[in-house]
Parts: sequence; C-alpha cells; structure tokens
Amino acid sequence: MRSDLARIVGEQYVLRDAAAEWTQDASIAMGLRGHADAVVLPGDAQEVAAVVAWCYQRGVAIVPRGGGTGYSGGAVPAPVPAMAGPEGTVVVALDRLDRIRSFDPGLWRMEVEAGVTTQTVARRARENGLLFPVDPGAAEQSQIGGNIATNAGGPHCFKYGVTRAWVTGVEAVLAPGELVRVGGPTRKDVAGYDLVGLLCGSEGTLGIVTSAWLRLIPAPPAAPVPVVAAYPTVDAGCAAIEAVLACGVIPATIEYLDAGALAAAGPAFPGGLPAGAQFLVICEADGGAEEVKELIEAMGLDARAHEPRELWRWRDGVGIAVAAAQGGKLSEDIGVPLDRLAEGIVGTVEIGLRHGLDACSWGHAGDGNLHSTFLLTPGDHAQLARAEAATEELFDLAVSLGGTISGEHGLGWLKRGQLAKQWAPGALAAHRAIKGALDPAGLFNPGKKAP
Amino acid sequence: MRSDLARIVGEQYVLRDAAAEWTQDASIAMGLRGHADAVVLPGDAQEVAAVVAWCYQRGVAIVPRGGGTGYSGGAVPAPVPAMAGPEGTVVVALDRLDRIRSFDPGLWRMEVEAGVTTQTVARRARENGLLFPVDPGAAEQSQIGGNIATNAGGPHCFKYGVTRAWVTGVEAVLAPGELVRVGGPTRKDVAGYDLVGLLCGSEGTLGIVTSAWLRLIPAPPAAPVPVVAAYPTVDAGCAAIEAVLACGVIPATIEYLDAGALAAAGPAFPGGLPAGAQFLVICEADGGAEEVKELIEAMGLDARAHEPRELWRWRDGVGIAVAAAQGGKLSEDIGVPLDRLAEGIVGTVEIGLRHGLDACSWGHAGDGNLHSTFLLTPGDHAQLARAEAATEELFDLAVSLGGTISGEHGLGWLKRGQLAKQWAPGALAAHRAIKGALDPAGLFNPGKKAP
Repeated sequence: MRSDLARIVGEQYVLRDAAAEWTQDASIAMGLRGHADAVVLPGDAQEVAAVVAWCYQRGVAIVPRGGGTGYSGGAVPAPVPAMAGPEGTVVVALDRLDRIRSFDPGLWRMEVEAGVTTQTVARRARENGLLFPVDPGAAEQSQIGGNIATNAGGPHCFKYGVTRAWVTGVEAVLAPGELVRVGGPTRKDVAGYDLVGLLCGSEGTLGIVTSAWLRLIPAPPAAPVPVVAAYPTVDAGCAAIEAVLACGVIPATIEYLDAGALAAAGPAFPGGLPAGAQFLVICEADGGAEEVKELIEAMGLDARAHEPRELWRWRDGVGIAVAAAQGGKLSEDIGVPLDRLAEGIVGTVEIGLRHGLDACSWGHAGDGNLHSTFLLTPGDHAQLARAEAATEELFDLAVSLGGTISGEHGLGWLKRGQLAKQWAPGALAAHRAIKGALDPAGLFNPGKKAP
Repeated sequence: MRSDLARIVGEQYVLRDAAAEWTQDASIAMGLRGHADAVVLPGDAQEVAAVVAWCYQRGVAIVPRGGGTGYSGGAVPAPVPAMAGPEGTVVVALDRLDRIRSFDPGLWRMEVEAGVTTQTVARRARENGLLFPVDPGAAEQSQIGGNIATNAGGPHCFKYGVTRAWVTGVEAVLAPGELVRVGGPTRKDVAGYDLVGLLCGSEGTLGIVTSAWLRLIPAPPAAPVPVVAAYPTVDAGCAAIEAVLACGVIPATIEYLDAGALAAAGPAFPGGLPAGAQFLVICEADGGAEEVKELIEAMGLDARAHEPRELWRWRDGVGIAVAAAQGGKLSEDIGVPLDRLAEGIVGTVEIGLRHGLDACSWGHAGDGNLHSTFLLTPGDHAQLARAEAATEELFDLAVSLGGTISGEHGLGWLKRGQLAKQWAPGALAAHRAIKGALDPAGLFNPGKKAP
C-alpha cells in the first residue's frame, strides 16, 4: 500500500509511522482514537483523485482530513476493524492543498484549495475591505475543506448564514476517483441538482472537496459592537432575546451563557460581571450607532457596549474555561426552535442532575444552537458512562422540542446511528440511498454521517 | 385511473376533461403543450402521498404543478409518449394546499403549504414588519412549492440569496409515496445530508414538496430606493457595475437592460430616458440615505433616485414589452461570472445576428444572470428553428465563459439534455445516480432536469 501511494504523492508524503495526531481530532478529549494503515498528503487535486482511485479499486477506506478541529470524530478513522475498508484505511490529509487559486476583491470572490485555513480566507478578505463571515472556533487551524465538509457555523452565522451560503462552487473527487467541478464563480446556477449543497455537510462520506469558490461581501459599514447584558434567570434572558428579535435590527450574533457556563467563564469576563448574573446575552450590531442603541433598548437598561476584540477573545475561551472546571467535559451541539430555547437550556441542567452530573450550556441563542455540556473528571469511567447516557436523553430532548441532534458539529463517529432519533424511516431511506448512489462501495469515511 | 384517484382526493378534484392550462406553463409562449391522463388536486399532504403511492405502484408518471409560471416547461407533462410513465401520466396540482400552517412574526418564521402564493408570503411578512426577499416574476400566481422546486430567484436575490437560503425545512412526498419531514423551524441543522437543499431546484424530479418552513428577516430599516443611470455603451455600463461593487455598499439589486431591451421597454420608462441611452443600470439601496448617495457616486453623475413602485412596475413589464416588439420571443436565463457579463451581453446580440435574429438581453447583472432573448414573429417556423439553433450557441457561450445554462428557470422540458454541455461526465454520473436513488422507477416528472 505505502509504496503504491508513494508513487502517487511522493515518498515523503506517505507517513509511515504516522503520529497519533493524524488519526484523531478535537474529539480526543473524549478519548476517541482511530486507526489508519497510511496517512497521505497529496500535493494537488489530481493526486487526491489518484489516491481515491487507487483506494476505490482495492477496497481501501478513505478518510479525508482537514484541520482536525471537529468535535464529533468526523475526521477520525473508524476505531473498529468492522468499519474499516476490507483492505484497510488511508487518511487523506488536505494540508498541502493550501493555494489561493484566485482572489478578485472587486468581484467579491475567491477560489481556494481545501487546505487553506479559515483564518487565511477571513484575513485576506478583511485586508481588502471584504467579509468572509463564517467563523467556527479554531479558525487559525480549521480548513475551508473541513468547513465545507461540516457546513460549519459560528456566532456570526445568525445574520450571515452557515458555510453553504458562501460557497458557489466546488471541485471534488467523487467515487471511484473522478475529479469534477460543480458550480464556480457564477453566483446563481440551477442547471443541475444541488451537488454543492449535498457535499456541504456530508463529512467526507460522499467525496472529497479539493477546492471551493467562495462568495464574499463588503465589510459591514460600521465596526461591530457587541452589546452584553446579564439577567437573573433563564426566562428573563430568553425574553430579552425575543425583545431583540422584535426591535427591527438584525444582530450579527445573538449568543448566550447560562449560569453554569458563567460560573466557569464569568470570572474572566472583561471588566467583571454584575453580581447575581445567572444568564448572559451577547448581541452584536454591525450596522452603526442606531443599531447599538436599539439593541441596548431591547436588552434592557443594564446592557452595555463592549470592545469587540476583548469580548470575543473571552467568548472564544468559554469552552476551555468550562472544560477546566472539573478537568473535562462532554459537549454537544443540539439545535432547537428559538421559542424552545429556554426548555433546552433548563432541560440540559435537569438531565445532568438526573445522572449526577454538573451540566451547563452556552451557544448561538439566535440560531437555537446550544452547546449543552456535562462536566467530567478525567479518568472517571463511571461518570463518563453516565454522561453518555445523559447525552442520549439530551438528543431525545432536542428532537422532542422539534430540533436537531446537531446544529454545527455533525454526525461523526461519536454520533453514528443517531440520525434515526430525528428522521423518520422514509427520510433515513433517502439518506441511505444517496450514500449508496455516490459511494456504492461504502469506502468514503465509513461510519460517519451514518443513519 | 380516474375512479381510483377520485377515491383518494374526491371526485370533484379529479379533472376529467382538464382544460389545457393544466398541462402547460409559461413556456406555452414557445408552443409547448403536454399530455396528462388525469389532473388531480389533492387537499392535503396525506392525499398527495396517497396519490404518489397509487401512481408509483402502477407505473404512472407524476408531474407536480405549482402556479405554472415557469419558462422552461418544468410543470408541463412530457409531450411525447416515450417520456410518460408506462401506465400514463397524472398532474398533481398543489393549489389546494394553500394554508399558512403557522406564522410567528416575533420568531421570524412561517410554515406554509406548497400552494401558498409567493405574494401571500411576502404580503403577510410585510404586514408584520418582516421581509421575504425572494421575488421571482409573477409573484401573485407563483407558489412557494414551485419556488422551491426551481430554487427561484429574482432581482433582490443579489443581496438576499435565492429561495434555498430562506427554507429551513420541508415536508415532502418521496418515492414510493412516503411523507417525510426534513428540517423544520430550527435554523441550523447538520444532522443529515442536505435533503432540503437537494429538493430545492430539483423541479419535482425527486419528490413533491408539500410544505416548507420559511425564514424571514426584519424589513430593511430604510425604504428601498432604486438608483438608475444610463450609459452609452455596454462597456461603460459594466464598468459602472464594477464601480458599484467597489463602493462598499451591498445593493439589494443590480439590474441591467441592454440597447435592444431598452428599444422595446424604454419608451415606457417612468419620466423618460436620456437621449442616447444604450444601457441601463438599476441598483437599489435599502440601507438609508448614505447608501443612496454612495450608489449615485459610484454610478456616475447622471444617476438618479426613483420612486420604487413605479420603477419596479416598469421593470416587471420588460419581458412583455420585449415580447411585444415582434409578437413573440425565445428568452433564456444564462448565468456568467460577473467579469464576463459584457461578453455575455455582446455575445447574445452577435449570436442573434449570425442567425438573422434580433436579440437583446436584460436581467440580474449583479448575479451575472442574463435573460438573453431572440425576438420572434409568431407562426414563422423557420425563424423559430433558427432561434433554437441560436439558443444552442448561447448555451455554449455561457459555458465557455465559465457560467451556467440556467441561472433561474431550471432545466424543464425545453432544456432537457443540456446539462451535458456544462457538467463533466463524472458529475453527470453523480446527477443520474441521485435521480436513480430517490426515484428508482423514474416516475417523478420524467424528462425534466435530465442530463
């Protein structure tokens, strides 16, 4: 296997004794490790196609890999032999596909290879007065290919939409090793089925995206101003969120933290939090002073504008602060309709209580997207088992509220089989039929996104 | 057939001698008429599912039908027996699914059945201070189900995106007659493959959408102001469009008309056009006076703000005015990258010249979406044949410019087989595989969206 692959990508790009980091992602915090027979780093799209063709001919599973920042094990090769290909597993890391193929600021567009980091795209856009609004965590490490594979979100997706909204075309390798292009720099295209959308969020189970045409927009006319207010209860906070929705402004973000998240992350809040804060709402206005004023009015008299860099640096650290509380955490990303947000937040804590676990949540309130989290002590296996049982209840809660088991992270290895909680048999059958149609041998990222 | 179907939907909703209008759409202007063995009007989603199940069991083709305003024959049953089902064809008209199932203005969302008109959604939103920005032509007749089936656009999609961006979930009937729900009121969901997106723009070839969850946003803070400027040449007009893109504003629309379109529609322009106008650009600002000022500066000193209602009423009539010039027209909707817009516009006229046809174009400049049009004299069959040959060249031009053969109208009966101009064999194979996976018997809208 390795010598054949070396003939395609060059010997130095087949990692013989691949370090563990190539077979894990951010889900290593949950202890998930995969197994691969080889890790290859193709240098361009043609090499990706050749590697896929080689694997597909021989029954070797193909696990595409971006920045490895995913939380659900989407980039982790299946840890059990039954889910590997009949002839093994190859990790295909896109790191070397890191070229910006074209950038036309005046036309609001950029074509980038899959391995370009999210931050690079955002920075190049910003330097030219433009905005690429997709902002999942770990932007300096996450790659556009992974953003597309997971249809990544982030705080600013409330106003601007998730990754799919910013991709007008992709180049991708489909089974059995065909390099195809669908869409491109053209902004509208209804000639064929929406293959671009289908690949977005497919977690590498239908093919490998090797480059993408991205749409950009002019940077907002005003500097973004986060407005923050604290509330004594979940209900008061959620009522404030609904008041924001009624005020006529489209906030760039509507974020929240509940009492448990504040207990962990609150002490580091820039300038300190008011005493008695049990729920925090962060809305950002990027349309000027009038919008800031209207947000403050809607959020209540204690709402205050904040310096954005400081505020977002703090916000980016919330997950780490929560994990630090007891040393570990099991964090999910359920989504619920906005009017069920309070039930999702309170329900998370109640589920934790029933299982003897400290629980909290924070996240993208405007999108109804909760990072529901159970705190863990590393090495406590009984506690971990309770947390896994609690997670099942959490998914049931999300579905019973009319929501989703995953608003952002996707169904990697950790959530395999869970889609059946949410989709009826007829929809699951369609899901399976699509997988079978585009990956008849079942070699693209086995076990992921599996109903 | 008719008595069986009457048992499902009620006798009065099986049209025995269905008038011709049920088997044609706006493509009747091209003379396209279809044939159906029955037209049924189910009363709810369950009846749609029962009709589909009945047809699917018996090898009867199913042609879903919305408002019948499409230009490419997407709702027209195949006019040739070879493309009907082995046991005939049933048109399933969604007109009676006209309920607004829920509307929560405070949560920016609405659930509507497929037969609700686009205008009804837009009006209900507007009455509540909200915006549903999708605005294809014929909004008073076109239905949301059809908008989804074609992933409809319109002038304001430049800023706000096409239909797909506004649909968070659908209820749909899939083969062999399963009523499923995918997505819902939750704004973010990456649990499964993007079936919502796949159904959007699938033109009824993968299933029938029976209702949809729509996303809305607060109406823009300022009343929309269209800014119009005339230019002496295509190049000068396209340069102005690029200047608009560079000015920092995101216009709600960027429309254009070329000299031929102006010759037909210009005389009715509100207030008259400046002498020598050979190219018109219409940009709309909906963000306040500062935006209007910046647009005027970017478009040049002659640019003027207009009263929106009057301007858009005129703009809506452009297609009719062009058709009236010689009595008929063959109008396409190619899309090109924005930097190739001038080539698309000039190329349209040149292709017409080569075939002895008057040609012109107008459309959604910002999206690179041209309504390239050949003028026709009704009854002149030789001329029509020349126009059809010219259209083939037009599609070649769009593809050679890196664009698409359809930016808006889709590949109904009139464009069947054309996707092969644009997609490589590997992508076409994926397209066919998806169709085969979701419609194994090939009974959903045969001949449409076919590569």
